Amino acid sequence: MNKETFLRNFMEEVWNKKNFEEVERYVHEEYKIHLDNADPWEGKILSLPEFKERLKFSFGSFPDIHFEITSAIHDDNQVAITWIMTGTNLGKIGDFPPTNRKIKTNGMTIYHFYNNKIAGHSQVFDRLTIMKQLGFV
Amino acid sequence: MNKETFLRNFMEEVWNKKNFEEVERYVHEEYKIHLDNADPWEGKILSLPEFKERLKFSFGSFPDIHFEITSAIHDDNQVAITWIMTGTNLGKIGDFPPTNRKIKTNGMTIYHFYNNKIAGHSQVFDRLTIMKQLGFV
Repeated sequence: MNKETFLRNFMEEVWNKKNFEEVERYVHEEYKIHLDNADPWEGKILSLPEFKERLKFSFGSFPDIHFEITSAIHDDNQVAITWIMTGTNLGKIGDFPPTNRKIKTNGMTIYHFYNNKIAGHSQVFDRLTIMKQLGFV
Repeated sequence: MNKETFLRNFMEEVWNKKNFEEVERYVHEEYKIHLDNADPWEGKILSLPEFKERLKFSFGSFPDIHFEITSAIHDDNQVAITWIMTGTNLGKIGDFPPTNRKIKTNGMTIYHFYNNKIAGHSQVFDRLTIMKQLGFV
């Protein structure tokens, strides 16, 4: 399977369908978050249990979080995607209580592969749009 | 020349060295901005003179604007880069007077090629970081 298809399946099964049992199929046992502004795990290497903790953290704030992939580019070891993230803020974000507001923003991620599994990412998204949509700015 | 090298040279010559005479060498005569949150030209197709106007607009706000490419991935028709943008706000941003503050933020861009020239981009960067650094948030 080419890496772009693999990555698209990962996004659908793990992030969109929130199927924790699929994590091992896609994610390397050492997953590094190279760049992800304001992500509590930025710069860290996550084990599979820590990877699932991070998923729970995101799903806790936005239980219906969804990524639509709008374009992709890949080489032998990396897949870059642009995406539209949507979700409803039904859980706490850090210490902030849920706003029940909907978010929709653009972002891009480069996923890095190692031994045919996803072993890390660099990610940027427009936090200002989200902060405005949640009423924080 | 492969497209990644071509793109790196474009970033250096046009954006970092601000050499307007090099624009024609790199940029297609129809350049589309597919995605670029809050960019006044988002969704538009720019001619070469309009492309230069957009450069002047950016250089006016941040005369020392500089992009350091931190990673890249390419296929036959696209180059994706992650970058660190730095600059000093010495000119107006829209109607806001210069703050004289320095900015530094992460972003990603996918550049699209057509007929061996750069014919457009999709871009995301963390505007919240910049708004904080400028004192607007």
